[in-house]
Amino acid sequence: MTQNSEFKRRNRDPLPEGMIEGRNALSEALRAGRPIDKIYVASGETNRSLSHLISQAKQAGAVVVQTERAKLDLMSPTGAHQGVIASVAAHGYATLDDIFARAEEQGQAPLIVLCDELSDPHNLGAIIRSAECAGAHGVIIPKRRSVGLTAVVSKTSAGALEYMPVVRVSNMTQVIRQLKERGVWVLGTAADGNTTLYKADLRGPAAIVIGNEGEGMSRLVREHCDYLVSIPMRGQISSLNASAAAAILLYEAVRQRSTD
Amino acid sequence: MTQNSEFKRRNRDPLPEGMIEGRNALSEALRAGRPIDKIYVASGETNRSLSHLISQAKQAGAVVVQTERAKLDLMSPTGAHQGVIASVAAHGYATLDDIFARAEEQGQAPLIVLCDELSDPHNLGAIIRSAECAGAHGVIIPKRRSVGLTAVVSKTSAGALEYMPVVRVSNMTQVIRQLKERGVWVLGTAADGNTTLYKADLRGPAAIVIGNEGEGMSRLVREHCDYLVSIPMRGQISSLNASAAAAILLYEAVRQRSTD
Repeated sequence: MTQNSEFKRRNRDPLPEGMIEGRNALSEALRAGRPIDKIYVASGETNRSLSHLISQAKQAGAVVVQTERAKLDLMSPTGAHQGVIASVAAHGYATLDDIFARAEEQGQAPLIVLCDELSDPHNLGAIIRSAECAGAHGVIIPKRRSVGLTAVVSKTSAGALEYMPVVRVSNMTQVIRQLKERGVWVLGTAADGNTTLYKADLRGPAAIVIGNEGEGMSRLVREHCDYLVSIPMRGQISSLNASAAAAILLYEAVRQRSTD
Repeated sequence: MTQNSEFKRRNRDPLPEGMIEGRNALSEALRAGRPIDKIYVASGETNRSLSHLISQAKQAGAVVVQTERAKLDLMSPTGAHQGVIASVAAHGYATLDDIFARAEEQGQAPLIVLCDELSDPHNLGAIIRSAECAGAHGVIIPKRRSVGLTAVVSKTSAGALEYMPVVRVSNMTQVIRQLKERGVWVLGTAADGNTTLYKADLRGPAAIVIGNEGEGMSRLVREHCDYLVSIPMRGQISSLNASAAAAILLYEAVRQRSTD
């Protein structure tokens, strides 16, 4: 360990809420059925009990991130991570079928939000909250390059996470295909959209895609959308916050679906 | 100083960005015309040069907060605060006339947001951003019991603070009266509103009041609104985030005002 990383070790923050370290702790968490977002595993580690844990975690839906041992050392408050640190989700994940079942139970056309690679947990939490308030049936996030259901997401959702199914998928373009096959129109948001959101038809089964905070939707996701809508910009700056855009789109759906 | 506060002194964080301490530093800031949000003054301090500074700061629009000396000691990183610590606004404040002039220049009916006692700088910043995107003409906040234009507000506004006039007023009910006299309809938001926002007429001169995160609008402000609108809640939880509510209301105005 270099002097610099030794300095960082001594001055680092404690492990954030929702992180666990060590093989026993991870094994117990998996046995208890706690939803694991990611496990960080020391690169090149070949230990058999660890390999077994990794395959268990994968089966349970966790993303495995190969990590340099020095970085694990920095992440670990006790230093006794035994080659593995895991982030536990603040809430369990649902399936696509859960979302459709929910819409059917309520006798409504499905209304779904797809979050494409959001990195800010406050944005994801705020979107889950607005989605719940608007009566949406579920939220879909990608497994990689996205914040998971962390404690901050849970807190920012202000309780909505307890009611809103959140599905985590390996492949966003694949889930868009599945949604289309099930009759859902997929709307992307883009400054150069074909039409404004007020002309989009949100009364039928619809999924709204919200892009990453900095770069918007990824190219592949954009190409798979049925159409692109723009939110009118009447001022000098060029973009809304991701969660504000989601709230506006969701409530345009509420307006169009209102019967009174 | 007690042992406990001595402990806190040694372990405290540095003064946050936008804070200045000491009489000379404050005097220079005032001379340079930097907008001061608040000055914290040691209770019972009768020094003449400090009294002079206080009256200068008041004239420049600052709120004066009498503060126990022990608390100033805790706030101060150097300990040399000389009885005064000030928070500098990240941007200057505008006047009500600025807002109306802006609307007139653009040939539009004024669209204004009143933030009633928001405490979270992220919410205020997000509202300023959405207001700018929606082409609103100004934002009004109260001097007391509200976050000012701090560095966090500026950052969260994503540049919008450079374009959006923000007015700070001593008395919210008085400014509502002034708005009414100038022909502006003042809409409060409340769960038990007379009508949903979709039936409110936002094409004419309108001011939208956004309540505090926890308790909504204060009683007096509520009583002075022309009418109360509700945002439909279609889920289990009972309220939207303040900045999401603002975005939804602002974009309902954009929709109603769109000619295409």
